[in-house]
Amino acid sequence: MSDRRTGILEAATRVIARRGIRGLRMGELAAEAGVSTALIYYHFTDRAGTLRRTLEFISDRADHYTADHCTADHNSAGRQPATRAADPRTDLEQILLRELQDTAEVRENSTAWGELRATAVFEPDLREELARSTHTWVHDVAELLARADPAGTAPAHAAAAERLTALTEGLSVRWLSGSLSLDHARRLLRGAVDTELARR
Amino acid sequence: MSDRRTGILEAATRVIARRGIRGLRMGELAAEAGVSTALIYYHFTDRAGTLRRTLEFISDRADHYTADHCTADHNSAGRQPATRAADPRTDLEQILLRELQDTAEVRENSTAWGELRATAVFEPDLREELARSTHTWVHDVAELLARADPAGTAPAHAAAAERLTALTEGLSVRWLSGSLSLDHARRLLRGAVDTELARR
Repeated sequence: MSDRRTGILEAATRVIARRGIRGLRMGELAAEAGVSTALIYYHFTDRAGTLRRTLEFISDRADHYTADHCTADHNSAGRQPATRAADPRTDLEQILLRELQDTAEVRENSTAWGELRATAVFEPDLREELARSTHTWVHDVAELLARADPAGTAPAHAAAAERLTALTEGLSVRWLSGSLSLDHARRLLRGAVDTELARR
Repeated sequence: MSDRRTGILEAATRVIARRGIRGLRMGELAAEAGVSTALIYYHFTDRAGTLRRTLEFISDRADHYTADHCTADHNSAGRQPATRAADPRTDLEQILLRELQDTAEVRENSTAWGELRATAVFEPDLREELARSTHTWVHDVAELLARADPAGTAPAHAAAAERLTALTEGLSVRWLSGSLSLDHARRLLRGAVDTELARR
C-alpha cells in the first residue's frame, strides 16, 4: 500500500477513535491526514469506500499488535497460528487478550473497531466488509482452538471461536464505555478460555 | 411515571433505534413524541439528562419482555428470579435469550441499548447510568446462576454472569450489524449457558 494511502487510513482511525464515525466529514479527515479531499476520493471513491477500507485496515493492524506477554516468536509471526512456537493454549489466550491492553494503539484500534461495528447497525454499506473481517478473526481463533484441543470437532471449535470473539467485543466495549476495568475484563476473558477448554 | 414522560422516552427509544444517537436533535425528538421541546427540557433538563433517562427506561423495559418460549409464570413475574416457577436453568436461558428475538420491540430496544453503549465511549455523561444498568442485569443473572448451580461460589457466579451478559451484548450487535443470523446467535448463547454450567 502506498504511504499516502496508509497515512489516510491511519488518520481515519485516529479521527474515528477520537469522536466516532457519525458526523465524520471528509474535510476533517483530509486535514488530519494532511492531504486534499480530492486525494481521498481518488484512493477510496467516497465516504463509504473510505470507511470500508478503514475497517479492513483496522482489522489487519490488530493482527500485528505486540501482545504484552507475548514472546518474540509471536511478535514476528503475526496471526499465523501454524508457525507459532509456544503452546497453542497460550497463543489462544494471547490472541484474544491483545485486544484488551492499555496502550494507545490498542485503545485507538478497539475504539474504532467498536464504532464501525455500532455504525454498521445503521449503515448497511459497512456490513459486508465487517462480516468478512469478523469471519477471518473467528477462523484464526478456531484454528488455535483446534490446536489446543485436537480431540474436539471442527463445529465445536467454530462455535467456541464465535463465542470467544463475540465476548471479546462485548468486554472491549464495556471497558471503553467505563462499565468494567481493564484488569477485570482480562480476568473474565481468561476465565472464558478456561471454561471453553475445560468443557472438552 | 406520567404518560407524557413515558411517551417522550418511548419516542427517544424509537428515534435512537432508527438512526442512532449521534446527531439526534431535541426538536426531532419533540416532533416524534408530539410534544414541545420545552416539555422535554422540563422533564429531563437537557440532552444528557434525556439520554440517561432513556437508558434507564430501555433497561427497565427489557425486564418485561415476553420471552418467546417463556411460560406464563415468567411473563407475569418480570425479572424476579425468586418468584419464578420453572427450573432455574431454563429461567437463565430465557432471561438471556429474550435479548435475541425477532420482534419489533426487542429489535428496537437492543438497537437503542447497543447505541447507548457505543455512544458512552465518546460521551462520559452516560457512563454512570450505563454502569448501573449493566450491574443490575449482571446481578440478576448471577442470582439465577446461583439457583441453577447451588454448589458454586458467589464469585464464580458473578464472573459467569458478567461473561454471559457481555457475550449477549456482543452477539446482539453482531446480529444487528449483519455478521450473524439470529438463529445462530441464539444457538451460540445456549451453548455458552451449557458451557458455564458444565464447568461446575
